[in-house]
Amino acid sequence: MMGLELAGGPQDIPPMHIEILNTGSELLLGNTINTHAAWFGRELFKLGLRIARQTTVPDGDAIREAMTESIERADVLIVTGGLGPTSDDITREITAEVLGLELITDEAALRSLEAFFVIRGRTMADANLKQALTPVGADVLPNPNGTAPGVYVPPRLNGRSSCAVFLLPGPPRELYPMFHAEVVPRLRALSGIETPAQVLELKFTGIGESDFHQGVDARLAEIPGLEYGYCAHIGEVDLRLIGTPEVLEVGKKIALGDFQKFLVSEDGASLEAVVVRNLTATRRTLAIAESCTGGLIAHRITNVPGSSEVFTHGFVTYANAAKVKVLGVSANDIENHGAVSESVACQMAAGALRVSGADVAVSVTGIAGPGGGSAEKPVGTAWIGIATKNTAARAFKVFHPRNRDDFKLAVSQAALDAVRRE
Amino acid sequence: MMGLELAGGPQDIPPMHIEILNTGSELLLGNTINTHAAWFGRELFKLGLRIARQTTVPDGDAIREAMTESIERADVLIVTGGLGPTSDDITREITAEVLGLELITDEAALRSLEAFFVIRGRTMADANLKQALTPVGADVLPNPNGTAPGVYVPPRLNGRSSCAVFLLPGPPRELYPMFHAEVVPRLRALSGIETPAQVLELKFTGIGESDFHQGVDARLAEIPGLEYGYCAHIGEVDLRLIGTPEVLEVGKKIALGDFQKFLVSEDGASLEAVVVRNLTATRRTLAIAESCTGGLIAHRITNVPGSSEVFTHGFVTYANAAKVKVLGVSANDIENHGAVSESVACQMAAGALRVSGADVAVSVTGIAGPGGGSAEKPVGTAWIGIATKNTAARAFKVFHPRNRDDFKLAVSQAALDAVRRE
Repeated sequence: MMGLELAGGPQDIPPMHIEILNTGSELLLGNTINTHAAWFGRELFKLGLRIARQTTVPDGDAIREAMTESIERADVLIVTGGLGPTSDDITREITAEVLGLELITDEAALRSLEAFFVIRGRTMADANLKQALTPVGADVLPNPNGTAPGVYVPPRLNGRSSCAVFLLPGPPRELYPMFHAEVVPRLRALSGIETPAQVLELKFTGIGESDFHQGVDARLAEIPGLEYGYCAHIGEVDLRLIGTPEVLEVGKKIALGDFQKFLVSEDGASLEAVVVRNLTATRRTLAIAESCTGGLIAHRITNVPGSSEVFTHGFVTYANAAKVKVLGVSANDIENHGAVSESVACQMAAGALRVSGADVAVSVTGIAGPGGGSAEKPVGTAWIGIATKNTAARAFKVFHPRNRDDFKLAVSQAALDAVRRE
Repeated sequence: MMGLELAGGPQDIPPMHIEILNTGSELLLGNTINTHAAWFGRELFKLGLRIARQTTVPDGDAIREAMTESIERADVLIVTGGLGPTSDDITREITAEVLGLELITDEAALRSLEAFFVIRGRTMADANLKQALTPVGADVLPNPNGTAPGVYVPPRLNGRSSCAVFLLPGPPRELYPMFHAEVVPRLRALSGIETPAQVLELKFTGIGESDFHQGVDARLAEIPGLEYGYCAHIGEVDLRLIGTPEVLEVGKKIALGDFQKFLVSEDGASLEAVVVRNLTATRRTLAIAESCTGGLIAHRITNVPGSSEVFTHGFVTYANAAKVKVLGVSANDIENHGAVSESVACQMAAGALRVSGADVAVSVTGIAGPGGGSAEKPVGTAWIGIATKNTAARAFKVFHPRNRDDFKLAVSQAALDAVRRE
């Protein structure tokens, strides 16, 4: 067991056996990682539902065998992929065959398919016609983001199966909106959840999952009607609470009672998004001086739309000469204390603030490895400096003896959190 | 269909039905993405083998049902996870039960388990004892990187199944070495591949998969004994060739005949690794001036161990004022031509070269979106500048109208490729 653990929760919802069937040879040939399973897991978890089994098969006839088995076991089967116009795309045909339903052209689906091409000034190929085929009596699920409409076959539409079947497109930009608009309401109806539980995602940084096990966990477990789970990433732990609004309020109070100051967001926003949001709200600008993180902090900040309003200058002073020349760090101090030191971190932050004229500056200097460590300063050591217009530069040390990628991520997390606290 | 397509290949190897069974509730609860399926797909592809089906089930009894079904269909079943010491970890027990084999303590496994703890100065818990349990007659697969030994049950060890079963640990740092050391030789023996095919991975940038379909593809398909496939990423396409050394030579000549100048590496090395390698070999240093990529280029370069030898200065001049102050770009030119222009890209590269004293400097300035585009310069436009000690700065335009993340990646790829060509 690792990653998200289901830590507790009510057992009063009758369990619904849900299976996911992902189709696509590319998922089994090694270069497309199947992110659908995890995505469905997360979305179903929010509804209080679980995946009982997930299967991946190549395009083509293997779908028939897998689908025939799944509808025997499952209450709900969600199939992705194989709804396109090519000869490989035969999910509709196989579904109709397995369920013993005739395939007919759905007029509404055909019209919206034609409209998709007209709007884009393109001519529809004959191959696309089959995308309007639907098993008799099934619902067509509109796809505003692509050519492949989805399909919903309700349970007991025929004599063969009491399993509800959803056919959904593979590409996430088509799948995700269709799931929320068309699948979620039907799953709620099927599962009999009348007042769906709400989800609260509390994102923390600076503490680990084990900190929750020292008390908070036991107290959350005692709240009737609260379901909760943890998800630990590098430098971050997410606590998900599921229940009625009243129950969530009780759970949140317990979690924040001990850990308020480690809370990043209550709405799933990333640490970098929160930093940009806070700086925007207070009309302050940010400068970043990086050594060991090598540009990752600036990269994360600039992943946030709107970051250009608050982030002005980044300096990747990887070489010592760059720290001296660009940021004005004392060459003597580098000589005497080393580039990875409190003094150099402070001077980097102060230099970034001075050169940029920003309101806040953060700096990092550390040893990413694999080389460069010593007994006194082992690989994984980093100093983080912070300076503002109103306060002198100060620095603190962190230690993350991890591989190079994880080290960069962990240190960038600590640095962004230092900015958040400012 | 997307991602890697199997474009052609010999059909003379008898197909072996291989299934993967991944166990672990965390894979179905939404926050751990199952990367095993793609990894096995890639590794088996190199052996000329394919995955026929991949299944994920939660920890516990669901493993029994899935395994019972798989051994009926498959020639080889590879199971991951559930070999740990906790009460959730019951893969060994279920395997013995399903195959009708008695579980006994393997003395060698027990000794190596004890040694694992002694070396680390830790005391072994009683719970770990069950990790030495093995079905009678099965092979124990040593695990130098963890406590869980693997298990190999040969086909026809019992009356029930002709399926070969591998039980492997879940964590990649334990799984990957065990797969290469213990599973690959046994798979080769099982599949009857006496002289295993070699794999050549040619990585290209600056061209797309469709370029290969204009001729190269048809000529590759004509080579007897050559199996090949493409894998397209953002700004990159990988061509994998599988066959004997002689056949690979023929295939490589065809691919490089048209596309030599787009070749990044023949050994799977990433573009950034090749850039670092080339600069190291020629003892030159690099400076990077980024606007729209926001630090990503520096981040990618500094992901490469040893990059500190060649990369000295990075400048993330996100604000126009930063371009003027830090890199000496003319404020008038920004006013007249816009920040996203040939002139500004050239001045950024020249400025980075001058300030850093590096041998080569690359710059990027563009419009990542979602805001900031215009009819003349739509979102997705970027200029890439390059300057060296011996040549004046020059710039070229690229256009990648994608979402913010993909735009940054595509532009960083074009910029790194410009450095590679220098």
